[in-house]
Amino acid sequence: MDSTPPAGPSAAATYTLAIDAMGGDRAPDIVVEGLQVAAERHPAARFLLIGDEARLLPLLGRNKRAEKSCTIRHTADAVTNDTKPAAAIRMRNSSMRLAVDAVCNGEAAGLVSAGNTGALLALAKIVLKTLPGIDRPAMAAIAPSARGDVVMLDLGANVACDTRNLVEFAVMGDVFARTVLGLTAPTIGLLNVGTEELKGDDRLRAAADVLRASHIGPQYHGFVEGHDIAAGTTDVIVTDGFTGNIALKTGEGALKLMGQLLRQVFSAGIASRIGYLLARPGLDRLREWLDPRRYNGAVMLGLAGVVVKSHGGTDALGFAHAVDVAMDMVVHRFNDRIRDGLALIDAVKA
Amino acid sequence: MDSTPPAGPSAAATYTLAIDAMGGDRAPDIVVEGLQVAAERHPAARFLLIGDEARLLPLLGRNKRAEKSCTIRHTADAVTNDTKPAAAIRMRNSSMRLAVDAVCNGEAAGLVSAGNTGALLALAKIVLKTLPGIDRPAMAAIAPSARGDVVMLDLGANVACDTRNLVEFAVMGDVFARTVLGLTAPTIGLLNVGTEELKGDDRLRAAADVLRASHIGPQYHGFVEGHDIAAGTTDVIVTDGFTGNIALKTGEGALKLMGQLLRQVFSAGIASRIGYLLARPGLDRLREWLDPRRYNGAVMLGLAGVVVKSHGGTDALGFAHAVDVAMDMVVHRFNDRIRDGLALIDAVKA
Repeated sequence: MDSTPPAGPSAAATYTLAIDAMGGDRAPDIVVEGLQVAAERHPAARFLLIGDEARLLPLLGRNKRAEKSCTIRHTADAVTNDTKPAAAIRMRNSSMRLAVDAVCNGEAAGLVSAGNTGALLALAKIVLKTLPGIDRPAMAAIAPSARGDVVMLDLGANVACDTRNLVEFAVMGDVFARTVLGLTAPTIGLLNVGTEELKGDDRLRAAADVLRASHIGPQYHGFVEGHDIAAGTTDVIVTDGFTGNIALKTGEGALKLMGQLLRQVFSAGIASRIGYLLARPGLDRLREWLDPRRYNGAVMLGLAGVVVKSHGGTDALGFAHAVDVAMDMVVHRFNDRIRDGLALIDAVKA
Repeated sequence: MDSTPPAGPSAAATYTLAIDAMGGDRAPDIVVEGLQVAAERHPAARFLLIGDEARLLPLLGRNKRAEKSCTIRHTADAVTNDTKPAAAIRMRNSSMRLAVDAVCNGEAAGLVSAGNTGALLALAKIVLKTLPGIDRPAMAAIAPSARGDVVMLDLGANVACDTRNLVEFAVMGDVFARTVLGLTAPTIGLLNVGTEELKGDDRLRAAADVLRASHIGPQYHGFVEGHDIAAGTTDVIVTDGFTGNIALKTGEGALKLMGQLLRQVFSAGIASRIGYLLARPGLDRLREWLDPRRYNGAVMLGLAGVVVKSHGGTDALGFAHAVDVAMDMVVHRFNDRIRDGLALIDAVKA
């Protein structure tokens, strides 16, 4: 190892991800099965698989592609879904903690965990710390819209946010949309209760002013409303963690309801069943496109390291998708680009 | 007229609704067409139709059932979508203002307007005032869920809310669910970023404590999350106006996106089209059930009078549905029941 500081992964570690093998509802099984898929998609990647060796070895024995890409680091401790953040911080040898440590000391360029979100965020904040100039990290995710995928943040890392936080989220959302969605000049909207400039509170109006005057001013669309998320009015939706968490889950809930209702419609009677079979290729594509696993992987942005949180209840494909997101961020030097963006914002304000 | 105070409609006026004929994107046409439908559903109702007589007379000539139930009150002034609330308050003779006045002076038991929401809320607050004991009015609406219709409030009347506001919203939501949905003991949830008692902010946790100790304690379910809205986990969802507005529009947007995608699927190729025709009865029922017009009519609760806001872009059926909601509230003495509920809450706190 060279002496590269934790903020920037060393060249040798660029393609190594630390994997919390014990986080998530069906860990470590779905983690290893997910790595089996991920190893094929990212042949150059190495995985530092952290968890209970006695359980991991037989799983790797059944998932040979994963086995080739993995190095096991044994630990018997694990953070559970019930572990409070403060207790998680006191556990020095949990699989989650060792994954964060591996990013901090440069062994890994990023990490993926399907474990307890609050614990992961707390550990990442304390061990990795935030990037210089970032006040608070944010959680971002990708959601489907009528005009393609959109990025939304914050999704719950910060229940209350001030103007500066919202501006930082916009900068991070811009870089995330470039890095993970591959957009060249993503448009950015601030989520509000109306689109008129006077809507919302002082905090939102001040954030709008800063963004308009900044280097991302040409990409700043203005205020957007709830229905603009699914409409894809902007590529990036910026909001506080309370609103973002509720909006994301409300949208997911509405789509899930519609899926349930459609299943009822198509299973009611012979004609409907035949109708389903005839329309099936299109319906299957639609289901695939809206598949929550495709949107799995909330990313913790603004930390001095790439940290991707897979949904705790996901399956192997969902976990593999979270690995995809982490790889995109590592390969495209996500954090370097955040630093560049922040420097430009601060230049405007100075 | 007797000397009944504005807070309680006089017996003679119980079934008269004031109608703002000039509010909404396609007023007065859809208003009169809506009344044509409403007059059949509510044969005992009388409508005080306020607006430009020269435009209303020919419309009533073409809608004979509406004509029989309507009395025209002429005014040439109207609040537009661009009118700022302060300007609307200065207009003494707008159709919206005269409708609010008619409720205030007891001529009408309630009003329906498809006009400018901000102007209507401002006028209603200033002219009608809030019910005794209510700090701030709230906007409520009905939304579809997997377990039937649910009531959600506030939807944007108050961008920021304190504990007392949230408790008042819960009381009003309880009465609304009893009155308009016909439930006997509606369950109530506080919208939050997680269901654990420690989630959210002090304001939410304090509101939870008050509700648990109150007369609606047995109906209080606890914190609910965004996905619980469409799941129908509780009959009433209580939140601040910022979050509620965004959640409602996000859910509507997601359902609309799904509808668009399904239309694409069913129009792509012969097999899909035939499939659609075979499944059509069920799909039509689903569309009808999710029809936004069925959920039209955001109600302004906590005012000394029944005020129903129809969506500005709705059609005749949507407007008729808003009239249904107003009639339900009038007939079931909505405001008397709010007063009873508040007295019980205050008894607990005293």
